[in-house]
Amino acid sequence: MGIEGDEVLNSHLQEIRRGSVVLASLLACRTPRYGYGLLTTLADAGLLTEANTLYPLLRRLEGQGLLTSAWRTGESRPRKYYETTPLGIETAERLHTEWLALGAGYTELRKAEH
Amino acid sequence: MGIEGDEVLNSHLQEIRRGSVVLASLLACRTPRYGYGLLTTLADAGLLTEANTLYPLLRRLEGQGLLTSAWRTGESRPRKYYETTPLGIETAERLHTEWLALGAGYTELRKAEH
Repeated sequence: MGIEGDEVLNSHLQEIRRGSVVLASLLACRTPRYGYGLLTTLADAGLLTEANTLYPLLRRLEGQGLLTSAWRTGESRPRKYYETTPLGIETAERLHTEWLALGAGYTELRKAEH
Repeated sequence: MGIEGDEVLNSHLQEIRRGSVVLASLLACRTPRYGYGLLTTLADAGLLTEANTLYPLLRRLEGQGLLTSAWRTGESRPRKYYETTPLGIETAERLHTEWLALGAGYTELRKAEH
């Protein structure tokens, strides 16, 4: 595609990934997780995310009542664990439904005669 | 969820839809389409989009070489038809692959014990 084409592709890829970290975090934090642990969980699921993106997002989701957090001090060092709230779980369901609806739309457009 | 909760949900829904109009337009315009025709095609596929969003996007995708356009004057009034270029088709494939990869990630996270 060439360098310019790659830039265009990357910008569109970034757009299509937007919002995915929110859904992925809400799903993953049904089990309480601390920031770095969540990063590796997401990476293991193929959803690579940067700490710079994730950590502020976790605070934002907490502010919106979708996650709660609590410090755990029993480990080698204190860590803040995030857990998805019932509202967060409901939100994740709605986001997943939306994501599926997009997929149904793509399938419809794909199979259209052209 | 209450009004505040709805706002939060809507902002996340909007994020997860981002990029979807690009992919949908590239798929739909494998058959040449004019703006309003494309709007109704997308709506029929469940991908509701506003003209205010779509029309500038089409020009942007044309600028990026993913669509080409041509005026057709044989109809009741002249209309600009957009058609996906080979680069646009390649881009759509990559975006669709990315969208599928996100889905695989969600499935992975969903089935994780919690």
